[in-house]
Amino acid sequence: MAVYTQVSDEALAAFLAAYDLGSPVALKGVAEGVENTNYFLETTTGRYFLTLFEKRVNAAELPYFIGLKQHLAGKGYPCPEPVMGRDGTALRTLEGRPAVIITFLDGLSPRRPNVRQCRALGEGLAKMHLALADFAMTRENSLGPKAWAPLWAGRTGDANALQAGLSETVEAAFTQILQARNTFADLPRGTIHADLFPDNAFFLGDDFSGAIDFYFACTDALAYDLAVCLNAWAFDEGNASDASRLEFNFSKGAALIAGYQSVRPLSIPERDALPVLCLGAAMRFFLTRLVDWTSTPAGALVRPKNPLEYAARLAFHLRMKGAEGYGA
Amino acid sequence: MAVYTQVSDEALAAFLAAYDLGSPVALKGVAEGVENTNYFLETTTGRYFLTLFEKRVNAAELPYFIGLKQHLAGKGYPCPEPVMGRDGTALRTLEGRPAVIITFLDGLSPRRPNVRQCRALGEGLAKMHLALADFAMTRENSLGPKAWAPLWAGRTGDANALQAGLSETVEAAFTQILQARNTFADLPRGTIHADLFPDNAFFLGDDFSGAIDFYFACTDALAYDLAVCLNAWAFDEGNASDASRLEFNFSKGAALIAGYQSVRPLSIPERDALPVLCLGAAMRFFLTRLVDWTSTPAGALVRPKNPLEYAARLAFHLRMKGAEGYGA
Repeated sequence: MAVYTQVSDEALAAFLAAYDLGSPVALKGVAEGVENTNYFLETTTGRYFLTLFEKRVNAAELPYFIGLKQHLAGKGYPCPEPVMGRDGTALRTLEGRPAVIITFLDGLSPRRPNVRQCRALGEGLAKMHLALADFAMTRENSLGPKAWAPLWAGRTGDANALQAGLSETVEAAFTQILQARNTFADLPRGTIHADLFPDNAFFLGDDFSGAIDFYFACTDALAYDLAVCLNAWAFDEGNASDASRLEFNFSKGAALIAGYQSVRPLSIPERDALPVLCLGAAMRFFLTRLVDWTSTPAGALVRPKNPLEYAARLAFHLRMKGAEGYGA
Repeated sequence: MAVYTQVSDEALAAFLAAYDLGSPVALKGVAEGVENTNYFLETTTGRYFLTLFEKRVNAAELPYFIGLKQHLAGKGYPCPEPVMGRDGTALRTLEGRPAVIITFLDGLSPRRPNVRQCRALGEGLAKMHLALADFAMTRENSLGPKAWAPLWAGRTGDANALQAGLSETVEAAFTQILQARNTFADLPRGTIHADLFPDNAFFLGDDFSGAIDFYFACTDALAYDLAVCLNAWAFDEGNASDASRLEFNFSKGAALIAGYQSVRPLSIPERDALPVLCLGAAMRFFLTRLVDWTSTPAGALVRPKNPLEYAARLAFHLRMKGAEGYGA
């Protein structure tokens, strides 16, 4: 949530000279992006976003993310489209950082999504999966099951300090996930967003108007993406003090799944795997939040998100017997 | 440089219902403002800025700042104009904070202003002073000479830790300012911006396109505003390692003064007072930076600005014999 790299007017002018976008009219640093610096850029031809990739981003992966958005946009899917310079390339360098200009996407992110928005999001997610079915590039999910044990190693104490007995919930979840390992591997795979939280989805009123921030996108089980969304959209938001009392909102979950299935029906194995996929998705976000929570210095302005919100989800999914519990 | 208050889509919709601005199309937190939260807001009728005033802002002063911008905009001066709701008021409440919508101003802030921009800025400053000549509201300069001694009290050691002997420069500056006290009081007064740094001024190419951030505006000597600008625009930017070697750029200073005088010629007393006004302006920014420098926790993401950049200016102004040294 910060502007890490300042862009001077001279550097911007030199950068824009490679494009047919006219001259700059406005440039505002935007408080979005943890690994990137983002500017709202207006030129005499229109509104854009300018993204500079900071040091933590693996520059070798940028062509994948750019190619993915070009593919989606080429299919008419609402997402920011990388703008090409006159030389036909979208990725170049600005202030010593890899940088791209992308198109501006209208819409607002819902803070507390309603049931209609959950349904529209489900449809939007399934349409994304279909639009990406013939996207040829692949990327391993760097935060998939193999990454979880190393993230958890040595954090039993941190977890129990947050909530007495929490490490037992985490261990029980690990056991369930391990038992379902083979099920995971056989599910239909494809390109997934993997981080389609409400702040990465735009709406105009209740209509889904697009998805942004594809920097966790990867090749994985399609139904896992639905599980990420069920975690992110269908639990009623808690806050620090009652994070552990977060509850599943059945209407929202059922609407999200129904929206998804209206475009891409789940197979029987996908439906059967839903509880353990949800458990896995909750594990992934619980663990990265736990790491951020325990490693962020007290004085930092970026407040880490509370891992307990995902501990509550872990506990919920552990109790779940079948997909019908989610409204599927 | 942060978004302190999140605005939910429901709260925004309720807020916008008081205006004739259509429905929201985009809302982006902008990394501007230390005391405020700012959003780029686009609606079906156009582009705006939404400002929420945080707790450190004195709400009783907001009508002054809003009235000032309304006055300037009413005279056709390029600045953000507060947008009135259907009830005729501009200031209302959003997410528990005082909030206003202002018009969007085109332009980019120069990082290293050139001579032509300095001249244009001088003209723009003088035009602002003329446009505000009949602005009836007043506000005391809360960071004027009376505030300086309390800010300095007990900081001799901090100053000398930054640079050996720096406290002597500061004391010498205090002595010169004290001697010129009566001169200050007799200069033509009016409404001044008091913080017109390059990041608060917009340009399209080399043309001044407007001023923003009037939250230090007050009633004070008009020539003091010019002195603030000479400090902010006519020294070639240093960085932390060689901040003490910052140098006055005569071409920029002379251009700024010439631009100002092309619209509003300085009186003889104003011209004579220029060195001590510049010294006072340098003192004001040196002291607030010194306080921020020594009171900001090490882990904070907002890096305080280096007070030594203003120590270099203090030393320069102390040596200055007359206004001709600035190109006046």
